[in-house]
Amino acid sequence: MDYKKYIKIVNDWPKKGIEFKDITPLMDNGMAFKSAVDEIVEFAKEKDIDLVVGPEARGFIVGCPVSYALGVGFAPVRKEGKLPREVIKVDYGLEYGKNVLTIHKDAIKPGQRVLITDDLLATGGTIEATIQLVEELGGIVVGCAFLIELSYLDGLAKLKDYDVLTLMKY
Amino acid sequence: MDYKKYIKIVNDWPKKGIEFKDITPLMDNGMAFKSAVDEIVEFAKEKDIDLVVGPEARGFIVGCPVSYALGVGFAPVRKEGKLPREVIKVDYGLEYGKNVLTIHKDAIKPGQRVLITDDLLATGGTIEATIQLVEELGGIVVGCAFLIELSYLDGLAKLKDYDVLTLMKY
Repeated sequence: MDYKKYIKIVNDWPKKGIEFKDITPLMDNGMAFKSAVDEIVEFAKEKDIDLVVGPEARGFIVGCPVSYALGVGFAPVRKEGKLPREVIKVDYGLEYGKNVLTIHKDAIKPGQRVLITDDLLATGGTIEATIQLVEELGGIVVGCAFLIELSYLDGLAKLKDYDVLTLMKY
Repeated sequence: MDYKKYIKIVNDWPKKGIEFKDITPLMDNGMAFKSAVDEIVEFAKEKDIDLVVGPEARGFIVGCPVSYALGVGFAPVRKEGKLPREVIKVDYGLEYGKNVLTIHKDAIKPGQRVLITDDLLATGGTIEATIQLVEELGGIVVGCAFLIELSYLDGLAKLKDYDVLTLMKY
């Protein structure tokens, strides 16, 4: 499916010079959204996955349907102060700005096979931080899936040891 | 299914006196998460739904798998400044604090039949604001589904004109 026709490019958002890729029109279309999720599910099926992990908030949009379709759990990675129990955390830089990501300490059992999902692979800062959290808890990252890759930012370079699926490239 | 055994009560979070209901252990369990989503899907199936709408971020966790299972779109309701294109907005009070919610102006076509999902019905402020956004865009709210209802806060009183499903009551 040509998913790009469902992506709206928003210039200078959230900062001047950024060409933001808005995925909400894709999500708004039931057929396109289901097709995108199903492609990630197919990618994941061969990997014997125990758990899907995704960073807030758009990582939930992709990852929760994938976990539902696979019948496995979903563990949210959230910004600092959003998860109510004991967490581990990591600082990370992203395409624009800086942040801290956290995950509940009991979210992953050692040895669990984890698929990480997010809407967008930009510089790779968010995914790298998410991988670090998963691995610190003993999870095995068996794949990373994104709707969109901004190939000019070369986030893939940070993921050369991992199996990566992206549905659209810009 | 007895979902309550997958909910962790966190005392005094995010503020003193709040007994926070943490849904992450439920999501972490693939069987429990799938069962909860499937109950909402069953509730929705009879309603001929065109679109699922959910407020960030936990409304995505529930709503996105429901929209995927039904083969319909999902429109996110987000805090101010998070959606990149033209929005309508509403001020709302919630269980602790105040906020502004927004939705893309083109997220809903007039006459579309909408299911609203969130993790928690507390005072009903968030759901009331979300309903207001949906109806302002011409959507028809045909149901509201929650994992948890805090019945002592009587959020249901704000929803007496709507068909409501909640999977757990406290």
